[in-house]
Amino acid sequence: MQPEPNAELDTVVMKFGGSSVAEPKQIRHVAQRLVAARERGLRVVGTVSAMGSTTDSLLELARRVSPSPHPRELDMLLSTGERVACALVAMAVHDFGQEAVSFTGSQAGILTDAVHTKAKIREITPVRVLSALDDGKIVLVAGFQGFSRDTMDVTTLGRGGTDATAVALAAALGASCEIYSDVPGVFTADPRMVPEARKLSQVSYEEMLEMAASGARVLMLRAVELARGRQVPIHARSSFSDEPGTWVQDAPGMEQPIVSAVTHSVDEVLFVLRDVPDRPGSAAAVFEAVAAEHVNVDTVLQNSALETAELSFSVPLDDVPGARLAVERARSTLGPVALEELADLGTVSLVGAGMRSHPGVAAKMFRTLADDEINISLISTSPIKITVMIPRADVERAVRALHAAFGLGDEATAGAAG
Amino acid sequence: MQPEPNAELDTVVMKFGGSSVAEPKQIRHVAQRLVAARERGLRVVGTVSAMGSTTDSLLELARRVSPSPHPRELDMLLSTGERVACALVAMAVHDFGQEAVSFTGSQAGILTDAVHTKAKIREITPVRVLSALDDGKIVLVAGFQGFSRDTMDVTTLGRGGTDATAVALAAALGASCEIYSDVPGVFTADPRMVPEARKLSQVSYEEMLEMAASGARVLMLRAVELARGRQVPIHARSSFSDEPGTWVQDAPGMEQPIVSAVTHSVDEVLFVLRDVPDRPGSAAAVFEAVAAEHVNVDTVLQNSALETAELSFSVPLDDVPGARLAVERARSTLGPVALEELADLGTVSLVGAGMRSHPGVAAKMFRTLADDEINISLISTSPIKITVMIPRADVERAVRALHAAFGLGDEATAGAAG
Repeated sequence: MQPEPNAELDTVVMKFGGSSVAEPKQIRHVAQRLVAARERGLRVVGTVSAMGSTTDSLLELARRVSPSPHPRELDMLLSTGERVACALVAMAVHDFGQEAVSFTGSQAGILTDAVHTKAKIREITPVRVLSALDDGKIVLVAGFQGFSRDTMDVTTLGRGGTDATAVALAAALGASCEIYSDVPGVFTADPRMVPEARKLSQVSYEEMLEMAASGARVLMLRAVELARGRQVPIHARSSFSDEPGTWVQDAPGMEQPIVSAVTHSVDEVLFVLRDVPDRPGSAAAVFEAVAAEHVNVDTVLQNSALETAELSFSVPLDDVPGARLAVERARSTLGPVALEELADLGTVSLVGAGMRSHPGVAAKMFRTLADDEINISLISTSPIKITVMIPRADVERAVRALHAAFGLGDEATAGAAG
Repeated sequence: MQPEPNAELDTVVMKFGGSSVAEPKQIRHVAQRLVAARERGLRVVGTVSAMGSTTDSLLELARRVSPSPHPRELDMLLSTGERVACALVAMAVHDFGQEAVSFTGSQAGILTDAVHTKAKIREITPVRVLSALDDGKIVLVAGFQGFSRDTMDVTTLGRGGTDATAVALAAALGASCEIYSDVPGVFTADPRMVPEARKLSQVSYEEMLEMAASGARVLMLRAVELARGRQVPIHARSSFSDEPGTWVQDAPGMEQPIVSAVTHSVDEVLFVLRDVPDRPGSAAAVFEAVAAEHVNVDTVLQNSALETAELSFSVPLDDVPGARLAVERARSTLGPVALEELADLGTVSLVGAGMRSHPGVAAKMFRTLADDEINISLISTSPIKITVMIPRADVERAVRALHAAFGLGDEATAGAAG
């Protein structure tokens, strides 16, 4: 059954990632998809990321100019990548016979806070977008950026910000949201790692949040959060085919699988703080400092045995310098806590909305790993996810073993707890 | 004598071309120059072009996406080049210990008409620039761009638009204007062609206009026009040294040289229209059509002998397609005029504010060329310039001969009509 939520809506926001607009040929292809949607009678908004590795090249350029580029200027710099891509797509749309107009984040009314390089969208006032749609135009909105009404400066939303742009625009326009990428949807595991991985036709916001947080790269966490908050259905699908992908939405009537997917990550570093005073406020001191550095914390775990606690948290590689700074700052409150950084670990997670009523899932997961002689360093659970940290070298083996043990490759028995 | 006009002004606009910001190292060098000016107590505005050949690369990208890129989108695309360069310079300024802030053309309040890719500056409302200067910051303004208040769209000013940005900003801010490039000033002839060519310490606006129009590439025609209209002195000087360059300004008391420089151009095509009806309105029909295509016409000449006239005009290579279109359109009014395009000619001009009172200059110029057996296809004069069109292959020889004949390499006898 192909879900068709919001079929009554006539506006669609279509988002294309950087790898979908890396070359002129692909840009024309994206334009064709937008034109096809327009010709089906939809009001069409496209939002695209910078071409290919443009953002990385701009970052590299900034680092060659300055050891620590000024954040405001970094945003001025990085925001150009999406503008280039949008203008090019708009040109190509014209060539396919439809009118198009591209807008920068600020022209599209995307208002953010003033936290440069990691701004959050506060509000969208899409006056010019609506007016262009009313004129029958295909509208391109530069992803990944907005502007702060306080400072009137250009801001960027951080990595994956274009997904957030798409969802926020869809919410503001009452549109559905299609997120195109080089993968055809959300899979039961990374297909490059598990050949028999299966595309899911639907996942709930909650499951998608856990998957995104634990390594599935199809959708960015913040975009899913935004979508859940505003109940915007997301259709994650392939740039290269018309096949349906995966719908991310809440569909109350449906039976929820016990385990939907195995996800993994090998891009994290585990910070372990020892000798943390076991008193109220210790964890707060650490995570306030971490938040002040705008570090994204994934897993957090605290073992409090005696008079001092052990506090562990994992952060993405990019955020390691910020996390170090935060720990340094927290030491002024906590005293001389010991810090260890573990960079040779990876995480593997089982995600499934149905597991909250099936306590046997964790036991089966640990047994599967034990049978494969994979040692677990850390366990962390949420109601619908179990995450283990294991040696990075064992991640691929663990993913395959768990995918097989929970029968995720088999449509009929998918997710059976055994 | 080194002229020091506007020494009482404390604001300076410093413009750097694309070749001065092509690499991170050069960007830091530009930042150092801005910082040095700030540390001498000046209020400093920098305006820079896109890095190296960025604009050409973006144009090439546009052409790979679309055979005829939509002008509005082309402006969105091209305007990013200067934003990148400005943001990078601002970052580098921070590293040298001064505060800096970069603005896009629209943030800097550069209002233009809505003629995409060739917009003209209408007005500057530099509210944010002034406020940042008051805060002691070095302000970077993205060159070559502005925005239309009518459409709220980003516009670009066409080739050399950053010079226009600099002059218009200087006028709006009551500042002096320094234009830095890889040449140390305005020369009596192209030094690559004439080794004994001499740097001029001063030229009048009028002379500079004629030089720019006839091939001198140090300053763009429109920037000089703007400067003359607003009486903004321009100091054209080298990015690589602190030596004074050439001041472009009107200094009434000074004696004006008879001949200041020999200029040349080999990038033009001569359009010759034959059998043009010799009646009022013929030339208007042609040049209205030409203006509608925003083609820059250089030399115009009409010979009206019998019942039909011959009308010739030269256009830069870039504008040839537009000129063809314009002629096609004019034929509907004029009837079947014959068109010939001559692409193997070049122009050589003598420019000098003093020549208006020395009629012997033309005769000496033609004699010099005749002695070198260089055939003249077309002659066109203004009160302070004589231009000849000659075979392109003879241009270099003609420039050398004229430079020598008028003694331009020799400070003492410079410009003597002989």
